[in-house]
Amino acid sequence: MDAKTKILRAGARIVLEKGFFDTGLSEVLAAAGIPKGSFYFYFKNKEDFGLHLIDFFAERQKAMVDKIYGDESLPYIERIRRVYKKQAKAFRKNGYKGGCPIGNLALEMGDRNDRFRTKLNEVFAAMKKRLAGHLARARELGQINTDIDVEQSADFILGSWEGALLQMKVQKSNSPHEIFDRMIFSHLLGGA
Amino acid sequence: MDAKTKILRAGARIVLEKGFFDTGLSEVLAAAGIPKGSFYFYFKNKEDFGLHLIDFFAERQKAMVDKIYGDESLPYIERIRRVYKKQAKAFRKNGYKGGCPIGNLALEMGDRNDRFRTKLNEVFAAMKKRLAGHLARARELGQINTDIDVEQSADFILGSWEGALLQMKVQKSNSPHEIFDRMIFSHLLGGA
Repeated sequence: MDAKTKILRAGARIVLEKGFFDTGLSEVLAAAGIPKGSFYFYFKNKEDFGLHLIDFFAERQKAMVDKIYGDESLPYIERIRRVYKKQAKAFRKNGYKGGCPIGNLALEMGDRNDRFRTKLNEVFAAMKKRLAGHLARARELGQINTDIDVEQSADFILGSWEGALLQMKVQKSNSPHEIFDRMIFSHLLGGA
Repeated sequence: MDAKTKILRAGARIVLEKGFFDTGLSEVLAAAGIPKGSFYFYFKNKEDFGLHLIDFFAERQKAMVDKIYGDESLPYIERIRRVYKKQAKAFRKNGYKGGCPIGNLALEMGDRNDRFRTKLNEVFAAMKKRLAGHLARARELGQINTDIDVEQSADFILGSWEGALLQMKVQKSNSPHEIFDRMIFSHLLGGA
């Protein structure tokens, strides 16, 4: 693994635990086992590191989701559903600590740094666009209600999922995921 | 206004802006115009202050909501809807900075402090219980689908609303509120 990836991986773990603002670069570099000089070879400053970290989180998220969509043994709508099941399971295994790094950074940094906010907005927009595409495919296949507006549904699903993760953290319970699953996949999207 | 209330009001404003962890007591006391000695007359320490602040936020929220429910000129379901419209409007006027202090504290402090998490969970539970009661009343009045599970719907609505606020902050737009409004009040609850 190259030094840049080592820094991003260590940073991802620490930022998910402590938030970005309270994460010190020296802590990240110590965890990555990288001397400080190398950091400035890859990143201009802490802000630049944070912006790269958002890309790192977004790519990791995309890889996880793409893998699930590639599972042709499952009905299409079930793959969409599985994305949240898988995240809920990982969250539960971690004692409901951490959660969605993109959502956490949005609440932590949205008011503080407009570059972060803009970047997070782009990441969410790309996630929504992909989800809307998957919903359109599920609609074509007759697996969800045909009168669903896929763009608006994707927006709502992503927002509601962030809210469910917040509730899971506070309740230390999987129940908000179960309710999310029922409300979105049985009530809102209807289908099979 | 008594000194305790002055401290809580100043604290509420600063914590909503900066988060709890990065708010200094000296800053709160300077904003409140209260000497440090008085602080320790009312609060044991910063944590104790934070726990009182959660109650303060919760009471302010409850007063806002109760006022809307008392407006007998509006159909009952419209009062429920109005709660979110009013919060969205205030958020918009503030340039989408701040947001829901309870939700922000949940994401910021949920992993860090179990007393905060437990207290925030109690506050959310009380909000959900009241909302479930209002939904039951709307259902009796025939203003929402009769097959709605009011407990689960209340859970889902509060979670989705927190998620919508997060999206509004990132997008600096009212659009997530509009989608929330349509998805919850037209699709999920159905009704008139």
